[in-house]
Parts: sequence; structure tokens; C-alpha cells
Amino acid sequence: MHQEFTTVFARGAKNDAYAKYFVGQSYLNMLSLEQVVIGNVTFEPGCRNNWHIHHADKGGGQILLVTGGRGCYQEWGKEARELLPGDVVNIPAGVKHWHGAAPNSWFAHLAIEVPGENTRNEWCEPVAEKEYRLLK
Amino acid sequence: MHQEFTTVFARGAKNDAYAKYFVGQSYLNMLSLEQVVIGNVTFEPGCRNNWHIHHADKGGGQILLVTGGRGCYQEWGKEARELLPGDVVNIPAGVKHWHGAAPNSWFAHLAIEVPGENTRNEWCEPVAEKEYRLLK
Repeated sequence: MHQEFTTVFARGAKNDAYAKYFVGQSYLNMLSLEQVVIGNVTFEPGCRNNWHIHHADKGGGQILLVTGGRGCYQEWGKEARELLPGDVVNIPAGVKHWHGAAPNSWFAHLAIEVPGENTRNEWCEPVAEKEYRLLK
Repeated sequence: MHQEFTTVFARGAKNDAYAKYFVGQSYLNMLSLEQVVIGNVTFEPGCRNNWHIHHADKGGGQILLVTGGRGCYQEWGKEARELLPGDVVNIPAGVKHWHGAAPNSWFAHLAIEVPGENTRNEWCEPVAEKEYRLLK
């Protein structure tokens, strides 16, 4: 496991603020705090966020732009989708989902917060270890 | 000049739709057409867009996330800013500006369209050749 994994965007500091919603170590580098909020999120191998929902009364949701490594995106009740550099995920508001690294690979994506009205995140349970370990 | 320049995001097709607003060859690969519009724009060495303004009654403007090569961003009346991979530019609505490749380098950035009300682009004159050639 190479500790120096970075993409074109700097990895940033340990993502302590959201650590309670993640399994494993993630890193966060905020790239834009005005106009549209954009962060670069990096996951160590095996790291993923809990199931969560981006709520909004109008608009909202998130767009992921994968910049490095190999990871996964899964919506509740659907099969997990493998993510590789260059992949794009449009996450609608209201959809329960998680994303993170593959068990054996670093992973990084830009997270673009889609503007909306009364946006807020609901954090749910961790991804079941048994289910996560089935990922290739 | 390496013809196969790409970044983590595919280069896409020749940007014919906007060619009249560019000097030189650019390429456009739309990454998201919903939620927030995002394109990957690639410029051949020497290629740049004309001076232009992102107008909006509210919100609007554009964010550039540089993914490869070396380029330039300049606002009217200000010095040109060199752009390298990892750089971020928040372009407010109403500001006349241009961006493009350095004379001797390919260049690529993601262009994130900031949502707004009554957004529209005003395309102006090309960057003066004499001024552009002064760039290093």
C-alpha cells in the first residue's frame, strides 16, 4: 500500500470532521468554497463512507468525478458499480448510497455539491462488512 | 507536440460548436449534462478562447479545475495567471476573461458551469496575438 497516493489534486489533510461517518482513513482537500462547493476526497484501501442521503427540497445531490485508483459506488437495493479514473457519477438528491475505495486500492474522486434549496445530509449505518468484502 | 495528450478524463471530440470563439484547436468532452454541467476542455499548444463574459442575473460564472499541461487565465485589465495541474480558478459572473494553453504546451481543465438565473455567455474579441506571445 503506497502511502503517497495522490492525483492531480493534492490529497489534503486527514478528514477528521467526517471521520465518524467513514470506516477507515479518508483525506479531504477543499478546492472551492464559493459558487459551487468542491472537495477532493481520497480513501485509503478499504476506506468507505457510511450509507448516506443528500436531501434537498429542490436541486441538491452530488457529482463524483473519479481522479485515481479504484473504488465503488452503490445505491440502496442495487448492485455496486466499480469506479475507475475518468468515471462520473450523478447522485440524485434523496437516494441512499455509499462510495469508497476497493478493499485493495487507494481511490480518489472530486465531490461536487449540487446547489439546491434546504440541502442537508443524512448519515446512516456503515456498509455491512460482509457485503463490502464481497467486492472484488 | 504530442498529439495523444490526455488527462484522467478523455479528451473527447474536436470542439466544433465553439470553434468560432477559439484561436487554434480545442476538444470538448461533456462529463455531466444534469445537476451541474461539467465539460473537460483540452487545448492544443497555442490554443485559447476569445475574451468572454459569463452573464447571469443571479449566481452563474464558471470554475476551472486544471487537470493537465500548462495554461493561462487572464481577467481584463489584470496580469495573466499561469495555470498548472491542480490549480482552481473561480470565475465570477460578469468578469471579462480568457483562458487557454501556453504557446508551447497542451492544456486541459474541467469547466464547471455555476448554476444561476438567466445565464448566458457573451463572446468578445480574440486575445491580441502580440499580448499572447508575451506569455512565457
